[in-house]
Amino acid sequence: MKQILDLNAFDVTAAAGLAAPLAAQVRRRAGLFGAASVLFYERPLEFLRAQGCWLYDASGVAYLDAYNNVPCVGHCHPRVVEAASRQLAAVNVHNRYLHPAILTYAERLIARLPAGLSQVAFTCTGSESNDLALRLAGQYTGAAGVIVTEAAYHGNTAAVTAISPVSFKRGAPPAHVRVIPAPRVDPASHEAAVAAFARHVQAAIDDLNRTGLGCAALIVDTIFSSDGIYADPPGLLVDAVDRVHRAGALFIADEVQPGFGRTGESFWGFSRHGVAPDIVTMGKPMGNGYPMGAVATRPDILDAFSATVGYFNTFAGTPAAAAIGLAVLDVIDEEGLMANARAVGAELAAGLRDLQRSHPLIRDVRGAGLYLGVELGADAALAARIINGLRERRVLIGAAGRDGNVLKIRPPLCFSALQANTLITALGETLSALPA
Amino acid sequence: MKQILDLNAFDVTAAAGLAAPLAAQVRRRAGLFGAASVLFYERPLEFLRAQGCWLYDASGVAYLDAYNNVPCVGHCHPRVVEAASRQLAAVNVHNRYLHPAILTYAERLIARLPAGLSQVAFTCTGSESNDLALRLAGQYTGAAGVIVTEAAYHGNTAAVTAISPVSFKRGAPPAHVRVIPAPRVDPASHEAAVAAFARHVQAAIDDLNRTGLGCAALIVDTIFSSDGIYADPPGLLVDAVDRVHRAGALFIADEVQPGFGRTGESFWGFSRHGVAPDIVTMGKPMGNGYPMGAVATRPDILDAFSATVGYFNTFAGTPAAAAIGLAVLDVIDEEGLMANARAVGAELAAGLRDLQRSHPLIRDVRGAGLYLGVELGADAALAARIINGLRERRVLIGAAGRDGNVLKIRPPLCFSALQANTLITALGETLSALPA
Repeated sequence: MKQILDLNAFDVTAAAGLAAPLAAQVRRRAGLFGAASVLFYERPLEFLRAQGCWLYDASGVAYLDAYNNVPCVGHCHPRVVEAASRQLAAVNVHNRYLHPAILTYAERLIARLPAGLSQVAFTCTGSESNDLALRLAGQYTGAAGVIVTEAAYHGNTAAVTAISPVSFKRGAPPAHVRVIPAPRVDPASHEAAVAAFARHVQAAIDDLNRTGLGCAALIVDTIFSSDGIYADPPGLLVDAVDRVHRAGALFIADEVQPGFGRTGESFWGFSRHGVAPDIVTMGKPMGNGYPMGAVATRPDILDAFSATVGYFNTFAGTPAAAAIGLAVLDVIDEEGLMANARAVGAELAAGLRDLQRSHPLIRDVRGAGLYLGVELGADAALAARIINGLRERRVLIGAAGRDGNVLKIRPPLCFSALQANTLITALGETLSALPA
Repeated sequence: MKQILDLNAFDVTAAAGLAAPLAAQVRRRAGLFGAASVLFYERPLEFLRAQGCWLYDASGVAYLDAYNNVPCVGHCHPRVVEAASRQLAAVNVHNRYLHPAILTYAERLIARLPAGLSQVAFTCTGSESNDLALRLAGQYTGAAGVIVTEAAYHGNTAAVTAISPVSFKRGAPPAHVRVIPAPRVDPASHEAAVAAFARHVQAAIDDLNRTGLGCAALIVDTIFSSDGIYADPPGLLVDAVDRVHRAGALFIADEVQPGFGRTGESFWGFSRHGVAPDIVTMGKPMGNGYPMGAVATRPDILDAFSATVGYFNTFAGTPAAAAIGLAVLDVIDEEGLMANARAVGAELAAGLRDLQRSHPLIRDVRGAGLYLGVELGADAALAARIINGLRERRVLIGAAGRDGNVLKIRPPLCFSALQANTLITALGETLSALPA
């Protein structure tokens, strides 16, 4: 499979074509980080300042950020920076000592989750969260098999890379992983697509049972980010999750992407589909950039795991993480960022659909809140060209999807209607500038 | 195996014996974190402020920290706090955009490493570092087997828990892991112990080859922290590492514990032994509490891995991580913390040996710099009693070793001679107070 994560990658052999200082920095970087280094854009960007939805380069030129979900309440939000600065100066030590903030934070998170998901384990990254979730599911069910979608990305540890088909440059996920198509919903026939997804899940369960591996979990990014962003129809997961539960397996909702209000209508992506996860994993937006993740689950699931191995995470659940996490929740609530994601997301989607009328290259506009996908009747190369065209117009977006032909629009949740308009205008110009 | 990590754990069923507000907080915590929650001490501590080697509870009572290596330059060091605050307020975004600080930081790290280890991949935790290191070794060698010591702890991901025998409450490491005794060096016969360690490594290599798994790596925490702290004799790893290399396997130096100047004499634990690692992993002290880790290796090793899967870590190698990492290196250098670790570590070791003369319960005092182990002729229960006795005297230490009978002394690197004396006095009082 084409490695989607690198679709918008800078080709280091092209450094000769860059201005001298940029070329020097790119070469220095390639020397230090080698083959593991990925830079965005044909002409990579350097950012030295950021605020809200704007990133500023060394000359002070502003780029509109419609890509980064980590700074969910806006880059360098003063409230979050203040919480971090204050707590890092006061005390920041591991959580085998008591500190009140981490209890308050855990309670605030749990209050937003469905009843039953009453315990939480803190981690430092979404990868660590999913790594732990897989072990919770394996231990609880006694089964080994995991079902994932075909272009899923769930993180970077050994165990989690194994369930991230999109990360494989060579080879494929190992034998305990069953890869099924994403619910690539045809707008004309939601029902058929939903039924097909449930059928694929059932077939994977049956196959895992036949081989003796058994099914431990279905894990789904509940907005199918790297699969190409599928949010519709609401309820699309119901039948699949029912089948998983009937098979004695667990449903892991990977909320690293859709969680924390991004879909506008609810705090979690799974809520849109009315399903009850057994495990919820969190990461990226939790700390607005401070490394934080978490796993929420039922006590019986956590107990089964804790009886077999110890789990402790030095940097997780610290006073600083708690203070920062609380500040992020406060800002989301007090600045009405979920309502903003809903309202601005709707305007943005409407504007993109307007654009679709004059640009038949746009095949579909979809998503929820401030996570939108624009599927192109084009290949990954043309999508990359459009992304680079937007970058030249100082607007940042990305690409997703099995075929790399879905524009991924996922700005900080404080994205304004004016900024949405700037994006639409720049995309229109970019599309118009393509050769006929 | 007894789970060493929990040796000094608070028993939540004892909450009834605590003062009411503490008992309430402990119960609230047990409800939120369940079986995965571990608290230190029979009477858990709550810390609301910290500075240098002091932690302060809610009443302002100061506890001397001789346990925590994460705040390596001292709790809440103003220089590190300032770097964090400044950079979090300026820009903190993933490293697929350029930023000068991360290049400077990578260069500063690589300059401290042996020639050949010229590339670095940043992570967020030591666990992520070791998880990546295992995959680098597996991909490079084409082998599956890993050799670890019997009470080793290398982190908390699925892959890394598998090579951490100390984490298993039930069962044992899986079939690809060969567990060998730590070099429990008898002070009377260094040579025999070193030869025995090399022999165990060779036997594990031979066994892995016999089973067809092959040997990918020997991974060693180069001060054998959780095995009970073995630093002597210098050179103890030479023969073992030679055998690993002759077998076509890699030597992974886990520097999460001994790295960043802790041993006083060199920046890395492996330097004491004059061996050349193929992969060096870093974690805890890098960011003085900010979640940071790294893997340094040779380009050929990183290339082999990068040809198969993509690796990207959202929160790692960011401008904030770089700024904080640079501040930590600056403080270590400018405040002469390696020299301090050497000098104060020597005074502390001498003082502990003095104590040994009047307290035959002390069987051995060992270690390097500010990582010292005090082996007791006692079981884990008595060691825990001593640790709790020190806590009542407001001095914090821990326990280590296969049998949990080694006091683990590992303060911030700014530990002073006066503080060393405070610790020695408190330990003497604690030992004297034990029933005869």
